[in-house]
Amino acid sequence: MRTLEVALGDRSYPIYIGAGLLRRGEWLTRHLDTGQVMIVTNATIAPLYLEALKAQLVGYQVGTVVLPDGEEYKTMDSAMLIWDALLDHRFSRQAHVVALGGGVIGDLAGFAAACYQRGVPFVQIPTTLLAQVDSSVGGKTAVNHRRGKNMIGAFHQPRCVIADTDTLATLADREFRAGLAEVVKYGLIRDAEFFAWLEQRMEALLRRDPESLAFAIERCCRNKAEVVAADERESGERAMLNLGHTFGHAIEAGLGYGTILHGEAVAIGICQAADLSRRLGWLDQHEMNRIVSLFRRAGLPVVPPPLPTERYLDCMALDKKNTEEQIRFILLERIGRARLPSAVGMDLLRATLDEFGRTPAL
Amino acid sequence: MRTLEVALGDRSYPIYIGAGLLRRGEWLTRHLDTGQVMIVTNATIAPLYLEALKAQLVGYQVGTVVLPDGEEYKTMDSAMLIWDALLDHRFSRQAHVVALGGGVIGDLAGFAAACYQRGVPFVQIPTTLLAQVDSSVGGKTAVNHRRGKNMIGAFHQPRCVIADTDTLATLADREFRAGLAEVVKYGLIRDAEFFAWLEQRMEALLRRDPESLAFAIERCCRNKAEVVAADERESGERAMLNLGHTFGHAIEAGLGYGTILHGEAVAIGICQAADLSRRLGWLDQHEMNRIVSLFRRAGLPVVPPPLPTERYLDCMALDKKNTEEQIRFILLERIGRARLPSAVGMDLLRATLDEFGRTPAL
Repeated sequence: MRTLEVALGDRSYPIYIGAGLLRRGEWLTRHLDTGQVMIVTNATIAPLYLEALKAQLVGYQVGTVVLPDGEEYKTMDSAMLIWDALLDHRFSRQAHVVALGGGVIGDLAGFAAACYQRGVPFVQIPTTLLAQVDSSVGGKTAVNHRRGKNMIGAFHQPRCVIADTDTLATLADREFRAGLAEVVKYGLIRDAEFFAWLEQRMEALLRRDPESLAFAIERCCRNKAEVVAADERESGERAMLNLGHTFGHAIEAGLGYGTILHGEAVAIGICQAADLSRRLGWLDQHEMNRIVSLFRRAGLPVVPPPLPTERYLDCMALDKKNTEEQIRFILLERIGRARLPSAVGMDLLRATLDEFGRTPAL
Repeated sequence: MRTLEVALGDRSYPIYIGAGLLRRGEWLTRHLDTGQVMIVTNATIAPLYLEALKAQLVGYQVGTVVLPDGEEYKTMDSAMLIWDALLDHRFSRQAHVVALGGGVIGDLAGFAAACYQRGVPFVQIPTTLLAQVDSSVGGKTAVNHRRGKNMIGAFHQPRCVIADTDTLATLADREFRAGLAEVVKYGLIRDAEFFAWLEQRMEALLRRDPESLAFAIERCCRNKAEVVAADERESGERAMLNLGHTFGHAIEAGLGYGTILHGEAVAIGICQAADLSRRLGWLDQHEMNRIVSLFRRAGLPVVPPPLPTERYLDCMALDKKNTEEQIRFILLERIGRARLPSAVGMDLLRATLDEFGRTPAL
């Protein structure tokens, strides 16, 4: 088992990464203060892992909330179901919320924990690649609003993150590939050596070689932990984690949540951000090609489904990284180095959007 | 004008107390970073003060949300109306939320600000006595759930609190008296000298003598600021601010929100907590009489409307100050000294509830 620490003073917490951790309850129970535990999961994950987790909590007062699977359920209504369950169980402000599932479950359960009685402890048990490498670490929680993704949320750090790599074996192929988009992102924004490693090992990852997976997950978590420790509430450096997300969120919102996976939208969005970086003269064509080629090898889309340029601009105006009226982007100076939010001329932005809207022109 | 500082490190903020502050916009605008301001108020306050406030914000991009007046609107649905408005205005994470109203508006707007894009700055402009002395200071925000009061919320400190004492002139008598319950509370929990001052000056306060009001508001805020500075997230000492609130919340929930004012329920709840303290041998009968007599002079109820003992116990089991199954109370050692949460024998609790349920026996 690998252990990483996210260094956030009195909110510091460990990330445990390894095979079979779900069946070794001590990594969970050592972080519980009291006997009240509310497990939040979804209908896909529950039949696979819920009983195994509950078997580790004998003697605890355990409640469960099983939500439908999908980004379209990351809503205030779903959060309300969690609060209803906590109150139906008469759970106190010393209760714990445990998120068992992917990024949607983690964000939802984390938000519910952040607001229940003004904050109760929670634990992340991510079961998808995307959640293990990205969304379960860092304390961002949220629900979507019909006008924008993650518009209502809180910063709420977990007590610990337990990433059982065995759970990736049951992950649908499309979900697994979507997770690789965020893996590649870490190479791009601050770890050129890791990007090169990914170019070497993409086939091993795709056949889910356990050693390669564990290495990649740890490397991503280490990168994320460093960024989050330096800027917990995203006043600066942390924004680089949003590479590709301004485009990606617009694609998700423009198509309607649930149409495209978050990781797929991020892969396309990173290609668009890279294209914009190239137009600014920061990234060269060779690096651009390496990026697109790696996503292609991962089986990820690199051009968006048809979406008018005006629809993009409309959706982007609500992206959380905007300050007042300007649209700002995380861009790339080179592979392994992101540049913090930059205001971009509307002509360049339109050029990128038009090109991606027209044709798979890469 | 009087200025107090709530000392919370990088979350410190000032409380401005004085006549006519609503018409002196500089106390607000010095705390605004950008031009986006969403004012949240209610249908009672809007006709009185909304235009005066907006007149101070010429050149700003101002949105308004006017909610119905009343505790029964302190719900997630109302919070959603605020988020809808922020998104309809395309306000960014650099927008400000300004709460103009009483405790309900402050709690709601504060919660909406805490969660909008994971937290935007907010400003409290309390217009009731209760909000000026208590609810606008300290960063507690929340909405009610049908199963309990303030069950969903966040800690989110304001940028500043602007208490314009002129607004108290238009306050309905019943609302004003309800605010006095929290004023008396500060004397009881940690300021015996102030309690004695209140015994001297109750009639001056009731005729809303400006000097007496300003003194009382400052004294309450100073007490609250000290308590909050020592224990921002209520892990210990801050709980004393809840004197009378376990009983009070049960009365409010038991009767249905909106039937009784929060301050009225708190006055009764403090009498019940005092009775319980007396039964434990902490408070003597003379002190008990002084407390009840002061509430009576303030025109506040000291016995609850009929509510079965079992209904109390049912409502209390969900009070946020409970740790696991035990019901804990803030009690009084003497006037001017609260005792932190104590588990109380069920026999004593039933004795108090039965006595208050039966007759105005004080």
